[in-house]
Amino acid sequence: MKTEERKLAEGILLTDEYQLTMAQLYFRMGLHEKLVQFDHFFRSYPDYGLHQAGYCINAGLEWLLDWMQTAHCRLEDIRFLRKQTGRTGQRVFSDDFLEWLEQNGNFEGISMQAIPEGRVVHPNVPLTVVQGPLAMAQILETSLLNHLNYQTLIATKAARIHDSGRGQLMLEFGLRRAHDLGANAGARAALIGGADFSSNVGISHVLGFPPKGTHAHSMVQLFIALDGSELDAFQAYADVYPDDCLLLVDTIDTLESGVPNAIKVFEQLRRKGHEPVGIRLDSGDLAYLSIQAAKMLDQAGFPDTSIVLSNNLDELVIWQILTQIQQEAPRYDVDPEHLINRLVYGVGTRLIVSWGEPALGGVYKLVAVCDEGKWLPAIKISETPAKTPNPGHKRVWRLYDHRGNATADLLSEDDEDPRKMECIRLRHPTRPTQYRELPRESVSEFELLLVEVLDQGKLVYELPTIEEMRDRRLTDVDRLDPGVRRLMNPHIYHVSLTERLWQHKQSLVKEALGQANKDVESVV
Amino acid sequence: MKTEERKLAEGILLTDEYQLTMAQLYFRMGLHEKLVQFDHFFRSYPDYGLHQAGYCINAGLEWLLDWMQTAHCRLEDIRFLRKQTGRTGQRVFSDDFLEWLEQNGNFEGISMQAIPEGRVVHPNVPLTVVQGPLAMAQILETSLLNHLNYQTLIATKAARIHDSGRGQLMLEFGLRRAHDLGANAGARAALIGGADFSSNVGISHVLGFPPKGTHAHSMVQLFIALDGSELDAFQAYADVYPDDCLLLVDTIDTLESGVPNAIKVFEQLRRKGHEPVGIRLDSGDLAYLSIQAAKMLDQAGFPDTSIVLSNNLDELVIWQILTQIQQEAPRYDVDPEHLINRLVYGVGTRLIVSWGEPALGGVYKLVAVCDEGKWLPAIKISETPAKTPNPGHKRVWRLYDHRGNATADLLSEDDEDPRKMECIRLRHPTRPTQYRELPRESVSEFELLLVEVLDQGKLVYELPTIEEMRDRRLTDVDRLDPGVRRLMNPHIYHVSLTERLWQHKQSLVKEALGQANKDVESVV
Repeated sequence: MKTEERKLAEGILLTDEYQLTMAQLYFRMGLHEKLVQFDHFFRSYPDYGLHQAGYCINAGLEWLLDWMQTAHCRLEDIRFLRKQTGRTGQRVFSDDFLEWLEQNGNFEGISMQAIPEGRVVHPNVPLTVVQGPLAMAQILETSLLNHLNYQTLIATKAARIHDSGRGQLMLEFGLRRAHDLGANAGARAALIGGADFSSNVGISHVLGFPPKGTHAHSMVQLFIALDGSELDAFQAYADVYPDDCLLLVDTIDTLESGVPNAIKVFEQLRRKGHEPVGIRLDSGDLAYLSIQAAKMLDQAGFPDTSIVLSNNLDELVIWQILTQIQQEAPRYDVDPEHLINRLVYGVGTRLIVSWGEPALGGVYKLVAVCDEGKWLPAIKISETPAKTPNPGHKRVWRLYDHRGNATADLLSEDDEDPRKMECIRLRHPTRPTQYRELPRESVSEFELLLVEVLDQGKLVYELPTIEEMRDRRLTDVDRLDPGVRRLMNPHIYHVSLTERLWQHKQSLVKEALGQANKDVESVV
Repeated sequence: MKTEERKLAEGILLTDEYQLTMAQLYFRMGLHEKLVQFDHFFRSYPDYGLHQAGYCINAGLEWLLDWMQTAHCRLEDIRFLRKQTGRTGQRVFSDDFLEWLEQNGNFEGISMQAIPEGRVVHPNVPLTVVQGPLAMAQILETSLLNHLNYQTLIATKAARIHDSGRGQLMLEFGLRRAHDLGANAGARAALIGGADFSSNVGISHVLGFPPKGTHAHSMVQLFIALDGSELDAFQAYADVYPDDCLLLVDTIDTLESGVPNAIKVFEQLRRKGHEPVGIRLDSGDLAYLSIQAAKMLDQAGFPDTSIVLSNNLDELVIWQILTQIQQEAPRYDVDPEHLINRLVYGVGTRLIVSWGEPALGGVYKLVAVCDEGKWLPAIKISETPAKTPNPGHKRVWRLYDHRGNATADLLSEDDEDPRKMECIRLRHPTRPTQYRELPRESVSEFELLLVEVLDQGKLVYELPTIEEMRDRRLTDVDRLDPGVRRLMNPHIYHVSLTERLWQHKQSLVKEALGQANKDVESVV
């Protein structure tokens, strides 16, 4: 795509056509500046097939805010909309609407609350709450979801991989397999969620992290093609990077060629006063090869060099590798714990595309409309009850138990305060018979999760650094029940409604169904 | 991300760190301007789990070329590289290398051959062949793969969905679930591969397609919240878009409310001289609901309105819906073929992320090096023989049989011409005992697939339009054996080597293994 085209494709028109047709309809009806509220939330955790997430890590907010602050209707955008015609050749968008859009096609009227990036989040909890004039709040939907769905998906995957790798160093390597420029958002989300560094040079510099990488198979191939050898290639690398020497050992044969050659070069380095960094294994049985390589490195006097593993790693593969090392290493007189503590994970494809569940189903639902100064709740009924959003203004509380663990997220109506309730009834969001009751004193802490981010388009929130988001994530994950963190079949964390919100929702559903039946009667 | 940051993250530094560390090593060794050849290819078709692709659709080239023509080393890029330090605090990149990079950090020296976009392609066939100076050809790797892997993945998925939907109109709806800005590349690839239109406004305008969309559930909700009804919402829509009236009927209850209300509005429209477009179903049992909706529309005198289906569609879901319609429709006196011919598919998440296989494993491998004017083949041995690339300069031939169907893709050495062989031996790329022999006269056509694209950085190729790519795709898919097009367990299309290329590859592997053993002996 050319530069000028990118301005068109990545600005305010990064939206779905129906947002614009609805906006024009609202304009025509005089509803376009009516104040409304949309909630953004996801309905279920990623299910990767064999394994499932029991929590998500929220991410993407800062880049959404960046986009909102620059995206606005330019003359060029209007020019394209003006040209568009419908089925019978008539223009889709009329001049008066386009004039309005040219003046008002920006997000200066939007106010927003959000759960900060890096926080553990759960289904059906509003992660982002948008209030603003109807037309622009509607046009925002697509880009908001686009920005938030993917980063939350990847931060979640990264957190799982980080957990599975027991917190060992983890590098994001996915740029070549990412979905086009999504790569950069993915790298950022990975850094929030669990990766320590990325190989992606540009985005690493933007975010203030040194990019990581050494050499590829092609370097060894090149030396061989020029009548040299793997050893020559390694020596050249050690000459140029004596203090950052990490060698990829599987171009020819890992144990017969790569590791012995690496050891030879490491010995030369050490004689010159440099300490080698380690080796990388990129194919074959990574558990077996890492045991054998560790044994060879130990015997040669390099017990502390890193062993970087890469090649389609994800949380399950790492879990399998660690299990195999624990079982198999002692047989070769290798201490499994020592080996595990020298491992580094290079995670590419399966992190950057969230292998197994490559999309998060975040949605953005109208929950309230302000009419003549009074807020009215909006409802959408679904044949699947779980898809009926929770109406109206709400507050999101996280309740901690006496161990300090998060025990539930609770949605209340805006003017409710569970801290003042003697006994808190936690209603299942959809099943009428399912609830539990918590005495006030069994809750050690009530935390409000949403913070004010935008007030009428103005940033009123101090954006945290990625380091702060990571700290936030570590704290939140630590306060989860271990069962919720489990890679497979995690415990279900409770997301509940207060009794009042639950009752309110039920009455709105009944009312809407009544309305529907009335309409049909008038048709029949 | 801010605008200035995006220039950093999406320009020449959209690459992996190891490309730069290798480039500096080559610079240090005086190898950086040595002419080399890299081949880009993928190793296997997408395997979606329950179903598998038997062919891919090539896509992404034009946007890669756009990127190559603008990406170059700017002072700002150099500034970041200069700041980067290694493990012991020393700078990673030295001034002389950075000076060279500032002058030469562009793709003006790159020549490229490629298979055009929209063509059917198969594993292990070079899709893109890059020749150029080593350092820059190496730096190109990551961005090339990033640009080509994703679009080919999505064009392939789109072709399958299009095929499954029997060529009925198909709309790309995935922006909100796409991987950040990858959405735009995905929409383009979908349009090449099988989608007729996209809901994504910006990219549709860039590519010259009218974006498609009507209204969401939120519009109906809004009217209800303001004390109106679904019917009011539909009437408002019909008033504003009388000639493009397509109504989403599942906000309340599809058959009890949505369809009857839509029919009422359609009747009003017709009385005013407008023909309604149709309805959209977005939840529930889409096969059953489309049968019932069709019956109601037929009875009301609207037998030709479209029925748009959406909600997690993919090739298998569509196949299932069509099968169910064929079995179930006659029971309700609905003609299944007539119903199927009025269906339109809105395909979102599962297309834009290639659900089931969200990444294509395209690779970029060094296959030849020019030393003192002589090209030498390069080889990489792998413990998995299928991962050993085919060395040296090659030509790619597509052979057609007497029915005009493609029967094999054949890789030959650069100076071989299978048209001159009496009997063509097609060698399996890895299995020594597996080959077949084709008499010259059984081949109706030999087609060379690679075309010249760049000559020393200069575009020497007339870029086809998306319409031309689509025509190309339709022709190519038509010329596939039906078994190869099958959604599940497709026939394996043959990709073969000529006898000479095969023998050459074997001797290089042996030589490299001999070299490896020699190295190890000298270590021990």
